[in-house]
Amino acid sequence: MSTEEPPAGAESGAGAGAEATGADDGGQARIRVARAALTRLMEPSDLAGLALVRAVGPVDALAIIEGTLEAPRGLERSMTSILVDSGAAGSGWPGLADALGRWRPRVKDAAPERDLAVIAALGGGLLYPEHPLWPPALADLDLAEPIALWVRSATAALPPLGSCVAIVGSRDSTSYGASVTSEMAYALAQRGLTIVSGGAFGIDAQAHRAALTGAGPGCLPTIAVMAGGLDRYYPAGNEDLLRAIAHQGALVAEVPPGASSTRYRFLQRNRIIAALSVATVVVEARWRSGALNTAHHAEGLGRVVAAVPGSVYSANSAGCHRLLREGAAVCVTDAAEVAELAGASGEALVPEPLQQAAIHDGLSVEDLLLFDALPLTTGTTVDKLSVVAGLPPAAVLAGLGRLELMALAQRGNGLWKRRR
Amino acid sequence: MSTEEPPAGAESGAGAGAEATGADDGGQARIRVARAALTRLMEPSDLAGLALVRAVGPVDALAIIEGTLEAPRGLERSMTSILVDSGAAGSGWPGLADALGRWRPRVKDAAPERDLAVIAALGGGLLYPEHPLWPPALADLDLAEPIALWVRSATAALPPLGSCVAIVGSRDSTSYGASVTSEMAYALAQRGLTIVSGGAFGIDAQAHRAALTGAGPGCLPTIAVMAGGLDRYYPAGNEDLLRAIAHQGALVAEVPPGASSTRYRFLQRNRIIAALSVATVVVEARWRSGALNTAHHAEGLGRVVAAVPGSVYSANSAGCHRLLREGAAVCVTDAAEVAELAGASGEALVPEPLQQAAIHDGLSVEDLLLFDALPLTTGTTVDKLSVVAGLPPAAVLAGLGRLELMALAQRGNGLWKRRR
Repeated sequence: MSTEEPPAGAESGAGAGAEATGADDGGQARIRVARAALTRLMEPSDLAGLALVRAVGPVDALAIIEGTLEAPRGLERSMTSILVDSGAAGSGWPGLADALGRWRPRVKDAAPERDLAVIAALGGGLLYPEHPLWPPALADLDLAEPIALWVRSATAALPPLGSCVAIVGSRDSTSYGASVTSEMAYALAQRGLTIVSGGAFGIDAQAHRAALTGAGPGCLPTIAVMAGGLDRYYPAGNEDLLRAIAHQGALVAEVPPGASSTRYRFLQRNRIIAALSVATVVVEARWRSGALNTAHHAEGLGRVVAAVPGSVYSANSAGCHRLLREGAAVCVTDAAEVAELAGASGEALVPEPLQQAAIHDGLSVEDLLLFDALPLTTGTTVDKLSVVAGLPPAAVLAGLGRLELMALAQRGNGLWKRRR
Repeated sequence: MSTEEPPAGAESGAGAGAEATGADDGGQARIRVARAALTRLMEPSDLAGLALVRAVGPVDALAIIEGTLEAPRGLERSMTSILVDSGAAGSGWPGLADALGRWRPRVKDAAPERDLAVIAALGGGLLYPEHPLWPPALADLDLAEPIALWVRSATAALPPLGSCVAIVGSRDSTSYGASVTSEMAYALAQRGLTIVSGGAFGIDAQAHRAALTGAGPGCLPTIAVMAGGLDRYYPAGNEDLLRAIAHQGALVAEVPPGASSTRYRFLQRNRIIAALSVATVVVEARWRSGALNTAHHAEGLGRVVAAVPGSVYSANSAGCHRLLREGAAVCVTDAAEVAELAGASGEALVPEPLQQAAIHDGLSVEDLLLFDALPLTTGTTVDKLSVVAGLPPAAVLAGLGRLELMALAQRGNGLWKRRR
């Protein structure tokens, strides 16, 4: 299990706020250690494990798994009803013995104190549901709420739901996707929003990078939700970026230091990206793409899902168009539209693009008919206008008066024509 | 009022079928002439005029306007209730005298027999609601159903609603819009669908042209709904195209030969494009565009509205994105998706783009965890796999059996690794 030196130049205490503010009485400390241990024993979204924790609390759950506490009578029945209530199990599930069989082989590897020391040395800490700074938005995941989050953050608390927007997309993004992402993430960060993404190549990296550049003072610019432990930088090609996020933004993961990024964990961390964010924007995604997985998590949570359109000839936009076509996402083209969806302040209202108004804009139907009928060069009579426009002479006279006032018509020698 | 010679080489009788099949007894003939005259007296969608026709029929309506028949008692009240029922008037409208004042100045210009002769000389004819070949789809316009349609068509009847798809968009289209339009219209015409558009420059012209190229035998490839009389080709730059449509497709207009294309008539003909088509596709449109007007007519009629996405940097896609964002249109990227929306035959179902399946596709969560845990080079034990994958040893064994069957895992000397 590899850990790593704290990055050179890390300000001591940066990101440790989460620890410092947590009430650290004995009970809280035991909960913290137990949850730290459980993040090693259980895979993300192990619903039986989460049901066990909900049934008996994290400390007893750990003791039961370790074998130092006997399972109380009726535990399996309680877990079953928790699973059924959350929709995770129908009539049954393999049962507690089966679940214990999958957690116990890892007990000997659990070393929560060491993991907590590693994260502290990296300037980070652990957040968990009993912690006062636990993001309430994660409760929307119901039973799939993470056991805990390992965090390396520039601020003690993560921003509230309404301040976070996820921007996700393909690893193999195009220059189009890169441009849209950069402009959008930069502008949203400038509005004080936090950009949440997955720390991957392509759209994710563009979003994090632009957010770091655009962030205003006092705002956490960006959060990267990682699939592996926070003592490693994965993918390695993003190491500099991820280091910068750890210092100026936040890295979070539900797996402990040393844990590797597996396919399963990549899929599971997508639900955390979705749950932390009031809106999830997919900038570019192929027909099948991890970004669509994040979008579907967001949809399932009732969060706003948005997709950026692109060329119908770009395979990298096919997933976005699929979301739009299926009605799973709202079409967004710039940061203002995203901010409006995210329910940001009034200034975020989408301005109608400035366009030169046509001179006939706002005319009534009658006046439009009359304006259409007016000759450009040689003047004509009211009677002729009545025929051409299909309006009674009295209406023509009244309309000509209005058009004259609007400087659209002019008369000379009793004849009328358009005024240029 | 300019008319024009029949185009050289026009097959005699082409498009005259509409005339030939109409029951031509005396009553029908009088209706035909009256409606032909009314198309000159009344602007499109003159709801008071349409209410008059509905109240007393076209022959008496014409006679009342001409002053040869006295308006029956209660006529104004009947017209009011027709207008109120159709939602066109609230508590009142200017009244019959006012309306007569706008129609009567044109009476001296009405020459329906001459107009019918002109259209016949062009190989065309007149369709009207009492005609057996009147497109039933137009009744969905309710009171705004056209008084009649002047037609120059290669077939006696226009295709039914389910066979017509409108493709509309900007006059100043980009090469992107031109490509998408051409491919889409060609492919839809090949499927036997008729492409309806407005005969304008840009997207309209591309759609008509590609449909003419792609049409299968026995199908009417395209319909151009014109804002002016069918004896003139407007815009003049599209003259060759419009001549081709008159011969192989259909030109239709609700104004008589000689009538000019006014702004008002351009807006009104959009409702006919929408009403004739089961779906309206907007390929490119600026933030404010006539194509959006057609889309809103289609929406109001309960027809399918679709929009093609494009670059967020293209002003010519801004109108499409606006429709998508407002939920007024479905996102479509190719002909297959349009055909599916149009409810075309089963072959039109959208195929999922072919993609190389990832080897781990379709694995259960347990098998995915196990596959993730399998080393690539040096084999490992079941116990170690149990720890790494977070699965009980029995489940690891069962899973390894499944992965081995799928040629994803292999063993040697009791150790397991991935099979490459």
